[in-house]
Amino acid sequence: MIKTPFVAVDGIIKIFDKDENFKGIVLIERKNPPYGLALPGGFVDIGETTEEALIREMKEETDLDVIITKLHGVYSKPDRDPRFHTVSIVYICKAYGEPKGKDDAKKASIYKLEEIPFEKLVFDHGKILKDFLER
Amino acid sequence: MIKTPFVAVDGIIKIFDKDENFKGIVLIERKNPPYGLALPGGFVDIGETTEEALIREMKEETDLDVIITKLHGVYSKPDRDPRFHTVSIVYICKAYGEPKGKDDAKKASIYKLEEIPFEKLVFDHGKILKDFLER
Repeated sequence: MIKTPFVAVDGIIKIFDKDENFKGIVLIERKNPPYGLALPGGFVDIGETTEEALIREMKEETDLDVIITKLHGVYSKPDRDPRFHTVSIVYICKAYGEPKGKDDAKKASIYKLEEIPFEKLVFDHGKILKDFLER
Repeated sequence: MIKTPFVAVDGIIKIFDKDENFKGIVLIERKNPPYGLALPGGFVDIGETTEEALIREMKEETDLDVIITKLHGVYSKPDRDPRFHTVSIVYICKAYGEPKGKDDAKKASIYKLEEIPFEKLVFDHGKILKDFLER
């Protein structure tokens, strides 16, 4: 029987206002363990593409309708999720308006790129965002 | 209980000779269904990164020691694998020498980019290689 890690998607959502001014990215406060701040994301369902999963999860957790702009990377270290081995496929996407925390997210807020609280980020989301800032 | 698609890796192996001349890419003839030509690849094991899985699978199927140069893309259409839903993470990599078909590969051969037999490729490997040629 085939056994592989779980597959998840995470989104780096770039927020713009209606005049196309960049406002920052979205982080959520997690309702479930591990507690802390995280990129919005979740598991891919059987029967949906990773892009569909990303759009669904961003809507569920932040109420935003995102447009995917780029594949950022794949993060797969076995210990990146303290619960079990999860491979995360990370996309960069774009959205307009204010995020609202829903579902697994107690809160969803916009953070300026210069004010990301790295010490509060769970999983390897600090590493993902450092890679994003460097490119 | 969490259920997600399986995670696999596939490699576009660029072969160079000892004078760094590009010779083509590697395709394998599959030993198991679906029968046909394919990129070398396989499932990610729990406890290994996708990069480790790629290096292991390339060695198992082609006997080549590859160096990963780039993430090519993520392919996740539910019907891309006729057996079940598999998300494939595709890397571009580099290797020297002659491939030898092993394990799941009945044969492993070098194909010039201008001579890829698209009609014989299984899964969505034709699409993956068309994306590769276009970029």
